[in-house]
Amino acid sequence: MSAPFIGKREYFPGIGRIPYEGRESDNPLAFKHYDAGKKVGDKTMAEHLRFAVCYWHSFCNAGHDPFGPGTRAYPWDTAASTPLGRAEDKLDAAFEFFTKLGAPYYCFHDIDMAPDADDVAEYEKNLKHMVALAKERQQATGMKLLWGTANLFSHPRYMNGAATNPDFAVVARAAAQVKAALEATVELGGGSYVFWGGREGYSTLHNTDTKRELEHFARFLAAARDHGRSIGFKGNFLIEPKPMEPMKHQYDFDSSTVIGFLKQHGLDRDFKLNIEANHATLSGHTFEHDLQMASNHGLLGSIDANRGNAQNGWDTDQFPSDLYDTVGAMLVVLRQGGLAPGGLNFDAKVRRESTDRDDLFLAHVGGMDSFARGLEVAHALLTASPWERMRAERYASFDQGPGQSFAQGKLGLAALRDLAAAGGEPVQASGKQERYENLVNQYLMR
Amino acid sequence: MSAPFIGKREYFPGIGRIPYEGRESDNPLAFKHYDAGKKVGDKTMAEHLRFAVCYWHSFCNAGHDPFGPGTRAYPWDTAASTPLGRAEDKLDAAFEFFTKLGAPYYCFHDIDMAPDADDVAEYEKNLKHMVALAKERQQATGMKLLWGTANLFSHPRYMNGAATNPDFAVVARAAAQVKAALEATVELGGGSYVFWGGREGYSTLHNTDTKRELEHFARFLAAARDHGRSIGFKGNFLIEPKPMEPMKHQYDFDSSTVIGFLKQHGLDRDFKLNIEANHATLSGHTFEHDLQMASNHGLLGSIDANRGNAQNGWDTDQFPSDLYDTVGAMLVVLRQGGLAPGGLNFDAKVRRESTDRDDLFLAHVGGMDSFARGLEVAHALLTASPWERMRAERYASFDQGPGQSFAQGKLGLAALRDLAAAGGEPVQASGKQERYENLVNQYLMR
Amino acid sequence: MSAPFIGKREYFPGIGRIPYEGRESDNPLAFKHYDAGKKVGDKTMAEHLRFAVCYWHSFCNAGHDPFGPGTRAYPWDTAASTPLGRAEDKLDAAFEFFTKLGAPYYCFHDIDMAPDADDVAEYEKNLKHMVALAKERQQATGMKLLWGTANLFSHPRYMNGAATNPDFAVVARAAAQVKAALEATVELGGGSYVFWGGREGYSTLHNTDTKRELEHFARFLAAARDHGRSIGFKGNFLIEPKPMEPMKHQYDFDSSTVIGFLKQHGLDRDFKLNIEANHATLSGHTFEHDLQMASNHGLLGSIDANRGNAQNGWDTDQFPSDLYDTVGAMLVVLRQGGLAPGGLNFDAKVRRESTDRDDLFLAHVGGMDSFARGLEVAHALLTASPWERMRAERYASFDQGPGQSFAQGKLGLAALRDLAAAGGEPVQASGKQERYENLVNQYLMR
Amino acid sequence: MSAPFIGKREYFPGIGRIPYEGRESDNPLAFKHYDAGKKVGDKTMAEHLRFAVCYWHSFCNAGHDPFGPGTRAYPWDTAASTPLGRAEDKLDAAFEFFTKLGAPYYCFHDIDMAPDADDVAEYEKNLKHMVALAKERQQATGMKLLWGTANLFSHPRYMNGAATNPDFAVVARAAAQVKAALEATVELGGGSYVFWGGREGYSTLHNTDTKRELEHFARFLAAARDHGRSIGFKGNFLIEPKPMEPMKHQYDFDSSTVIGFLKQHGLDRDFKLNIEANHATLSGHTFEHDLQMASNHGLLGSIDANRGNAQNGWDTDQFPSDLYDTVGAMLVVLRQGGLAPGGLNFDAKVRRESTDRDDLFLAHVGGMDSFARGLEVAHALLTASPWERMRAERYASFDQGPGQSFAQGKLGLAALRDLAAAGGEPVQASGKQERYENLVNQYLMR
Repeated sequence: MSAPFIGKREYFPGIGRIPYEGRESDNPLAFKHYDAGKKVGDKTMAEHLRFAVCYWHSFCNAGHDPFGPGTRAYPWDTAASTPLGRAEDKLDAAFEFFTKLGAPYYCFHDIDMAPDADDVAEYEKNLKHMVALAKERQQATGMKLLWGTANLFSHPRYMNGAATNPDFAVVARAAAQVKAALEATVELGGGSYVFWGGREGYSTLHNTDTKRELEHFARFLAAARDHGRSIGFKGNFLIEPKPMEPMKHQYDFDSSTVIGFLKQHGLDRDFKLNIEANHATLSGHTFEHDLQMASNHGLLGSIDANRGNAQNGWDTDQFPSDLYDTVGAMLVVLRQGGLAPGGLNFDAKVRRESTDRDDLFLAHVGGMDSFARGLEVAHALLTASPWERMRAERYASFDQGPGQSFAQGKLGLAALRDLAAAGGEPVQASGKQERYENLVNQYLMR
Repeated sequence: MSAPFIGKREYFPGIGRIPYEGRESDNPLAFKHYDAGKKVGDKTMAEHLRFAVCYWHSFCNAGHDPFGPGTRAYPWDTAASTPLGRAEDKLDAAFEFFTKLGAPYYCFHDIDMAPDADDVAEYEKNLKHMVALAKERQQATGMKLLWGTANLFSHPRYMNGAATNPDFAVVARAAAQVKAALEATVELGGGSYVFWGGREGYSTLHNTDTKRELEHFARFLAAARDHGRSIGFKGNFLIEPKPMEPMKHQYDFDSSTVIGFLKQHGLDRDFKLNIEANHATLSGHTFEHDLQMASNHGLLGSIDANRGNAQNGWDTDQFPSDLYDTVGAMLVVLRQGGLAPGGLNFDAKVRRESTDRDDLFLAHVGGMDSFARGLEVAHALLTASPWERMRAERYASFDQGPGQSFAQGKLGLAALRDLAAAGGEPVQASGKQERYENLVNQYLMR
Repeated sequence: MSAPFIGKREYFPGIGRIPYEGRESDNPLAFKHYDAGKKVGDKTMAEHLRFAVCYWHSFCNAGHDPFGPGTRAYPWDTAASTPLGRAEDKLDAAFEFFTKLGAPYYCFHDIDMAPDADDVAEYEKNLKHMVALAKERQQATGMKLLWGTANLFSHPRYMNGAATNPDFAVVARAAAQVKAALEATVELGGGSYVFWGGREGYSTLHNTDTKRELEHFARFLAAARDHGRSIGFKGNFLIEPKPMEPMKHQYDFDSSTVIGFLKQHGLDRDFKLNIEANHATLSGHTFEHDLQMASNHGLLGSIDANRGNAQNGWDTDQFPSDLYDTVGAMLVVLRQGGLAPGGLNFDAKVRRESTDRDDLFLAHVGGMDSFARGLEVAHALLTASPWERMRAERYASFDQGPGQSFAQGKLGLAALRDLAAAGGEPVQASGKQERYENLVNQYLMR
Repeated sequence: MSAPFIGKREYFPGIGRIPYEGRESDNPLAFKHYDAGKKVGDKTMAEHLRFAVCYWHSFCNAGHDPFGPGTRAYPWDTAASTPLGRAEDKLDAAFEFFTKLGAPYYCFHDIDMAPDADDVAEYEKNLKHMVALAKERQQATGMKLLWGTANLFSHPRYMNGAATNPDFAVVARAAAQVKAALEATVELGGGSYVFWGGREGYSTLHNTDTKRELEHFARFLAAARDHGRSIGFKGNFLIEPKPMEPMKHQYDFDSSTVIGFLKQHGLDRDFKLNIEANHATLSGHTFEHDLQMASNHGLLGSIDANRGNAQNGWDTDQFPSDLYDTVGAMLVVLRQGGLAPGGLNFDAKVRRESTDRDDLFLAHVGGMDSFARGLEVAHALLTASPWERMRAERYASFDQGPGQSFAQGKLGLAALRDLAAAGGEPVQASGKQERYENLVNQYLMR
């Protein structure tokens, strides 16, 4: 365990590197389940989980909500006298946190890390400056970039859309940011590049030509892909679905919508999906469902690990703590053989009322432990319980004989009808849902 | 206006052919807006709207809900002593209602019209008998079949799915029904054939291999298509999306999900969508949104006209009476040039508490008037108001110059970035949502 | 452990009394956490939890849903040739199940147990006959009645309401049932009597005088209370809130609505609440919230233990298996010192697809284990973790000084203003939500 | 029609006093239905509707949302060099808008109108200064204050609650604001004083003692009432329910919850409810439902006129444009004889994308026309259609005989049972929902 990075100033004094102490520990700043080097199957926990800390919620977001400003006065936001100086301090704070926590990856938007500017050249210069510093910090600490992205939703110019804006001038302006953020991602060795289309959608159908906007969106993504490949980006482009908020309705509604869009436009060879738990639930699915749909198509690229709650209809971005969610997610991930080059990014924020210095650590420790335990339980369900056998037996009639012929597309309606007429009424087969649910609790509690 | 059909017995005595009396009429059993022969643009109202009455809600469903049985004692269900006798009486009642109402189309499931049977041959015989009678009634009255379908969701054998059942024997049994219902549809001249996958989905992900089930689904649909084309069916196959209910989650979640599925499996040349208002809203969209998504792809085939309400999370299947919904729907339909061979099927049921003989008429009259008025308002918005000009101007920057080049895929990220850098900050453009909303009310009230 | 009750015929052959085998057991038909005699604090698990099996879902409901009939062919429904004969068989099956499972209580509606009849006298006679038999079975087995109730929602006569029906004749008819069911409850020694107002509400506000209906409702409840007390009923009357379904909107929307209604009409001395998990979540609350609101007023009388799921907007009535729910519920129950004479009734149904003979056992075993584990974790959080100390410290400023004076109503606005002006800006205090959430997982996993 | 107020500078140049031009007008800046002096029944439209413009959304809120800052650069926010100077400019802009629009009332929070300050005395001084100016503007223009309120939700000190904060120091600080805002309301002749408890609730139940917090809330409200009455306030105190947002759960969940709370604490003689449409729908009710519940108790004091939409689970605060909503609201208002001293406050904001100078006028004109038309339709339904007769007949059995005796509490359960036994099965009565729905459309279209 290496020493944490400390920049010009220590931003989290009194907190050291988070240790693993095991299930019986009462230390709130210790891992109880996440033991980076522990083997689960043939990989270590760290290899399975590939945790990332997100820059925006943890170092930029001070806790504002629609009814009030931020509640946390961050020391890295106040000491320096220039925007670039504050950005440098923030970078130091971030790397101190990353290394104290022991999560090996991080993620960022262009304007999280560097000061924004309306002038394109100035914006680019700021970003390059900060990327060079971040690269130094990565080399000094061994931290890696999971993915980068551009913020195409905060600036008022994007209020009617970025890539799907009805005004071409805005589309071009968005392209300038994507170009810069993509180049930054390559420079920092990021494994993926993410598009979250927070303003790609509509506030009202009345004024919107959805067909035209979606065609523009595909053009924009293709241009980004072409540029990325031309500068040596070998990773995945990722689309992050979200059904709504900030817009009334967004185009990347859910996993299935995005998969259809990517395939329609021939983008599915370069683009995969980054599935966020809270976005899945806002679209009427479980987290596991949207992961599974992406995985079915070989398109599950990365995960934004957080949670919402069932009573609030907006993106609460809470830290993941529900073990049923983490078990469900890890079942999908284990079955597809892992997430690399993607990983589990904590796109989560501490509550607006969580204002203590240690709250950010408590939140990440809880999230990492929840996924570590989810991994263990999912692995045990798949390898030590009757789970997979029970599932396989349900579908056994398609493994041979006429069922197999049907599955291969060899039986027409008339042949099927004749088999049915000859076979008599099918034998009833219980779905055994309660049996499966009991198995989850049984392995969770062990 | 022809005389209504009366069978052996009159089931709606005291109610004659519903007249058009215009907006000032106080007669609850008269149309105030629907005047079949009135021209709206270059087509009559009847040609635009192509109204259909659904057999199941209006003649089979007696008002049961999960907490109680039906409330309506239908005279056609009680007089005859055999299932076939009751089915014949029901057919007479249905045609009496159709012709008194003046809706030119109807829709049915196989076992709405004919008695079900576990034995395939007996089931087929029953259906053929009833189809022959229905054909006679069609010829006698001029009524036409909008579409036919098979009920693959009520029988307990389908509890774990029909085409996506984990047991091949059930899949084959479902195929027997689809074959028969498809042949019935052809025999009766139906313009479309519908698949609503009420049991195609899952109760729990725990026991379900969604990838395998969805592949089976595609095989099943392809087999149906091939059979249909082989027996001379020239119309559209239609998928009707619904996100959930009866299953926890259904595969045909919404318009975009189904479009992606059809394209993935090469089914989009034969299959289109039948969009139901209440299903769209259950999936987190507006009715207009799901219509628009289908229309964008040239895949809007037909409409199930009803409504839910925003407070209840299940399919309430109320008759359409919200004029904002009907205006929104008709905007999409008019822009795509109509629905034929599809139409507007009232997949709606009178409330469980609506037990008077005239309630079924009142409900249909209200629904037909709501769509007739929606048609008039949508037509006026598109042709007499500034609506379309305002929308076109929003996108004008893509009609020429670099915007057009971008839309044609000719501009890369670097070129876009340079245009942005040279162009300076884009000029802000209001979305004018309130202006559009006021226009809707302005034309609604005229 | 006594021998299970077996009537004329054994309905669950091959299944014996469910044993407690502990956490390491792989036997799906054994308890892993519920050990009736184990002490948790100063009471046994059985004393804390007071589990009841519900008659309707487990022995009447064969699995119908709005789109299809039941899937389970119950042997007790088919052998006898008369309604009363079938009711007697069902009673035997129920007592066999109760005693094999080892839950000490049960609950029933009048017409679950006895055949319904439109004629009041016949209905009463049927019920009396069955109640006499049930009393014998109770004496033979030691089973007890947790609560009884009348079904005022299934019969078509109640479509517009029972106690709140616009027609007095229906109100009177409902009273006949309540009178009989109340007398049955007294006869069987039930500790509570429940009102679930499934039809007390409206399908549309258009036709409804809510003020008048709610006044009638209060009159009806008062009449029931008076009758109950006059025949020696000493237990609690309970209202079970539910926001909607079957009606568009029900009067007993949630815990707070019912509390306000009871207090307004002076019914809160005799009536308490029966909180159902799935009803709470349908009304936009967590299960724990609605329990807490009732408990705050001393009005938490009993619990209907089940769960919904966050994606479906209707009452799915699944068996409780989410340990976060059971921990939350038991925190409230432990803090108020228990539920007696109420208990935990499994108002839950196996899935429509759960058609095996053992599924009903699996479901109940899972539910009982989930609450037993929830009890253990809640007890540990309250007694062994820093949870209660952390909460108490949050409110310490009201335990003395001016804070205490305020809480006692002794400080006016001007005095408060002066304290604020003198005190300066309050010191920020973190809510520590993530810390609490980590504590739950820590104690869950121990 | 008096001349609009213009301060030092004209903030809406090119827009004059909004005229009434009637239904055929194509002028988007003219009323088509709202004609202030037109009689509807025995009162003018202005007397019925009592429209108010809200200060915060229209003059403070520049369009921020959780994902981006404001989009509108308000001229009144930039010219002056001091906070007080900007506040004075804003006041001028507001009164110019009020008088050009022709809405007779306005509403404000303390810190909308005057600069906030952590120091209590400075805060009070700022407010007094601005109130004096506002009083001058009121006298000059005839504008009146509908109600005033204090913002107890934006400042970070209120993150854990204001009146219900676990720290007494924050409660006292909140009291200082309420005292000042209440005095400002009296000074400006406001008819009501509003409490919206945006932070009165919880982010997690884990750390919250809801019982204690609710008792504090009642103490706080009583202190405010006592102070108000002591300084001569004769109007209504109003609670504005909202179920959630910004907190996970708020105490003033909905109309019924607040009514129960007020009655429990003896506050219902001084407090009434201010019902907001979008808050009602977020709590699972229709707007009309929450209005009706308040009105049933004589507690409907005022209305926040806006709307949400059924697809988004947060407070979108759109301008009211749905005529079904306005008809439903006005049915309740007309039946209770009006809203005075309350009124219809547009707690609504133009969309973030509505950035033109005229958008604020378009939005208000649309909202006022929607309520004016809703008033006309509701009045016609109540006075010219069969609506009220149909409703009265539904309940006729309670107007005399045993039904009346029951309603008067004179019939016990045994008497009711005997009436039922003697009366035989009740006669079925249709709810006629579709008939009512058709009536709404019929009168809407006239």
